[in-house]
Amino acid sequence: MSAAHRLPEYADILDAARVIEGHAVYTPLLESHDLNARLGGRILIKAEPLQRTGSFKFRGAFNRISRIGRAARKAGVVAFSSGNHAQGVAAAASMLGLAATIVMPGDAPAIKRRNAEALGAEIVSHDRATEPREKIAEAIARKRGATLVRPYDDALVIAGQGTVGLEIADQLEALGLRPDALLVPCGGGGLIAGCALALRERFEGLAVLAVEPAGFDDTGRSLKAGTLLANESGAGSICDALLAPAPGEITFALNRRLLAGGLVVDDDMARQAMVYAFERLKLVIEPGGAVALAALLSGLYDCRGKIVAIVASGGNVDREMFFAAPSPHPSPLIPSLDDSDP
Amino acid sequence: MSAAHRLPEYADILDAARVIEGHAVYTPLLESHDLNARLGGRILIKAEPLQRTGSFKFRGAFNRISRIGRAARKAGVVAFSSGNHAQGVAAAASMLGLAATIVMPGDAPAIKRRNAEALGAEIVSHDRATEPREKIAEAIARKRGATLVRPYDDALVIAGQGTVGLEIADQLEALGLRPDALLVPCGGGGLIAGCALALRERFEGLAVLAVEPAGFDDTGRSLKAGTLLANESGAGSICDALLAPAPGEITFALNRRLLAGGLVVDDDMARQAMVYAFERLKLVIEPGGAVALAALLSGLYDCRGKIVAIVASGGNVDREMFFAAPSPHPSPLIPSLDDSDP
Repeated sequence: MSAAHRLPEYADILDAARVIEGHAVYTPLLESHDLNARLGGRILIKAEPLQRTGSFKFRGAFNRISRIGRAARKAGVVAFSSGNHAQGVAAAASMLGLAATIVMPGDAPAIKRRNAEALGAEIVSHDRATEPREKIAEAIARKRGATLVRPYDDALVIAGQGTVGLEIADQLEALGLRPDALLVPCGGGGLIAGCALALRERFEGLAVLAVEPAGFDDTGRSLKAGTLLANESGAGSICDALLAPAPGEITFALNRRLLAGGLVVDDDMARQAMVYAFERLKLVIEPGGAVALAALLSGLYDCRGKIVAIVASGGNVDREMFFAAPSPHPSPLIPSLDDSDP
Repeated sequence: MSAAHRLPEYADILDAARVIEGHAVYTPLLESHDLNARLGGRILIKAEPLQRTGSFKFRGAFNRISRIGRAARKAGVVAFSSGNHAQGVAAAASMLGLAATIVMPGDAPAIKRRNAEALGAEIVSHDRATEPREKIAEAIARKRGATLVRPYDDALVIAGQGTVGLEIADQLEALGLRPDALLVPCGGGGLIAGCALALRERFEGLAVLAVEPAGFDDTGRSLKAGTLLANESGAGSICDALLAPAPGEITFALNRRLLAGGLVVDDDMARQAMVYAFERLKLVIEPGGAVALAALLSGLYDCRGKIVAIVASGGNVDREMFFAAPSPHPSPLIPSLDDSDP
């Protein structure tokens, strides 16, 4: 079994941390008095919009691509992605001197497409509704002898994303905090699998919850059913980063062991969390990146009296799309406002 | 001479740091590979939009108000402000149990006004063009026996803002970096005076530059003339946080000793820096808060081969105003894009 196809372990995350050091951003764990007072707990936000390429995806891509052997490097890498993984792969490949080809849906946000192109990647468009992008990417990789860098079902990618969790653990410990729960946006499940692996090693008994968009709650339903279930086709969501068709085999094998369950956020909740982040946290978070925050702000998850870590996983949102979000005035989105010490 | 009216010293900043600890946010010093590659230097951004109330102003207000003696506390505090100082004073007063009255221009950004009100302050409106707001505030303070918390011409306020510089110095040292220059947005000059005091104590020979909006370059012109000059009236700017009529007496006494000069940024440069921050840094920065970044992006200050620290001083911008910024597409604002390692 190759390094990419086995189940990753905590030690793989420590390895990944060494590999990405000096290349990825060690992102801050932010805390907001306004958010704490509003929710009645202590909320720590891992700010991956501040990561290189604007999302956590760079971590896994860099870890994976840096392990490609000398012989295979010349043929380059191929990836399929709605955008953030594309940018992560394009940036990592370019830094490591490999050519990158990305299979991308034609309706991906313009900013994500532009950025992947600007990073020197070749973009191959496909129709999200009809063509299986994974098959297109596999065919290109086979033809060229290139390495396929999967977005989540790969041990080295999961270990790379797990460095988000490793940093959260170190940052919480530096603050003297022991978290009650960790909420993470979940598409294919790579980020949450890696984070759960890291944080449950360090904080026994921690509840890790997957947050998914309505219509794409495959991981939550799979956890409940105890078996891998795909999403019904046909649903749509503004959370373009979280629209994986089904949990990955490796990610689900980890997540069924490590997660406490799932929460489902609708588009309005995600949009309101984006607006809250803009107005109060002064952070640009994309819809899919804001679902964990949305689960707290909407009251889906009650964090009164708790210490809760959440991941804001990315910030690659077109300005136009962001501006279309409804104004919270004159009736504030979240009426209570208390900036006094919690 | 009272503690507020003398020239502050480095030791006052150390005192202020102890006073605000646990109340203010120790904000991150951010670095962006994209920005470094674009500008050919190492740029470190102190992210004060992430500060409590969304700007650095909370620091000075909390430091000042916490020193008000027992007898004077009952009468509360009065401040005049276009918005960020208002929010800082309102939040600090509320936390410390004092009533706050704020004299605010009628055309202040709605978000700033709303937030000050939500923090429990009483707002008194005035017309920016005709009424001298300082006089109104002084009259209210006299009548009530309340303490006037000036926005910049106060040693304790300057020392509080200086904690921004103190943190930058500590954060640079932790990274093993010695800065060549520090660029700071400048209105009345309190933030830059405090930062210059802290950073020039720690890094001898450091060049500190004030960045001001066109039409409000009073500090730059005063530095050049060697005497305190006011702005011509009549000019306007989107940088609402930086429209002080003239340098303060205390701030200019410090700044003439500590600063290397001034740079002038126009509204377009500030707007483009806001858009860059949104798209690449994933930070919400208000126009006045973005002028130091604008000085770099516009090429006004050449940072090739240099280590440059800048302050992003606040993020309180109405969404509507932000959305009005022109789109950088199809022709990118800053054409070069290189995400490879600098």
